[in-house]
Amino acid sequence: MDKKEIESYIIDTPDFPKPGVVFKDIFPLLRDKLPELMDVFKNMTDWSDVDYIIGIESRGFILGSALAAHLGIGFIPIRKKGKLPPPVIDESYSLEYGSDVMEIQENKEAKNIIIVDDVLATGGTLRAAKNLCDKANYNVKDSLVLINLAFLNKFKQEGFPVKSVLEYD
Amino acid sequence: MDKKEIESYIIDTPDFPKPGVVFKDIFPLLRDKLPELMDVFKNMTDWSDVDYIIGIESRGFILGSALAAHLGIGFIPIRKKGKLPPPVIDESYSLEYGSDVMEIQENKEAKNIIIVDDVLATGGTLRAAKNLCDKANYNVKDSLVLINLAFLNKFKQEGFPVKSVLEYD
Repeated sequence: MDKKEIESYIIDTPDFPKPGVVFKDIFPLLRDKLPELMDVFKNMTDWSDVDYIIGIESRGFILGSALAAHLGIGFIPIRKKGKLPPPVIDESYSLEYGSDVMEIQENKEAKNIIIVDDVLATGGTLRAAKNLCDKANYNVKDSLVLINLAFLNKFKQEGFPVKSVLEYD
Repeated sequence: MDKKEIESYIIDTPDFPKPGVVFKDIFPLLRDKLPELMDVFKNMTDWSDVDYIIGIESRGFILGSALAAHLGIGFIPIRKKGKLPPPVIDESYSLEYGSDVMEIQENKEAKNIIIVDDVLATGGTLRAAKNLCDKANYNVKDSLVLINLAFLNKFKQEGFPVKSVLEYD
């Protein structure tokens, strides 16, 4: 499945969730082309020594756990504050207005992981996820997103691996 | 993987998320035995004419999309109000205190689906999901949950198919 075909299953929805924002609706893609999309993700990076996929609540759960099942490896969630049973490790991050906290369950043994999410916008969420994984003894081998809204971030310049299926400059 | 082994990866966490509640932490199972768990779900029902799996936000996203990828079919989310781009169909349901609204994207052509969720407690969420799927022109062939807390519901008596990996009476 090439980029053009993938894009044909993503619907631009203007003024959602608020005026002036164009929401990229990936759900038609997940409904009609999930197996093909999984192969695209599989071919994006080297999975040979990856122990787990880590997905960010809640849309990142969909792509992350689907990919984990497709590859036959385990899945670990990063959740919003208060949703994971203790002991947890947390990380604060900035939002457009105010801030939020994400959590992951404690992990003792060093493991190799790849972070998966749907959309990279300003990058604040992914950066916080990376920091949280570092704290939790996970070695972040790579980060994969379906859509990189590169005009909202300058991720390539910050020494932090992010690969995207689709990139918009 | 038999029930005893599955249970060994689910950790009872007392007094979470509030005093008196015992939270069944399924995340160790998803981390360490996801492929094996997918095979268990695969063998629970007849998938031959199932078009999509429908998962309920947000823990249902994990099991539902993983299973969709494992089976090579598509995934459709039921989300909390305001998260899905329009046009959507909604369904109200009762919570312990107050009520909530879930949404699914409009669907024109009749399709066969199976609902997947992690825990069946009182059953209010799953029943609302079933009603929502009915409204959206989906034929609910079956409902699969990892854990049925049967002492909190009497689901078997209501003419609504639900199968569980683990059941607690």
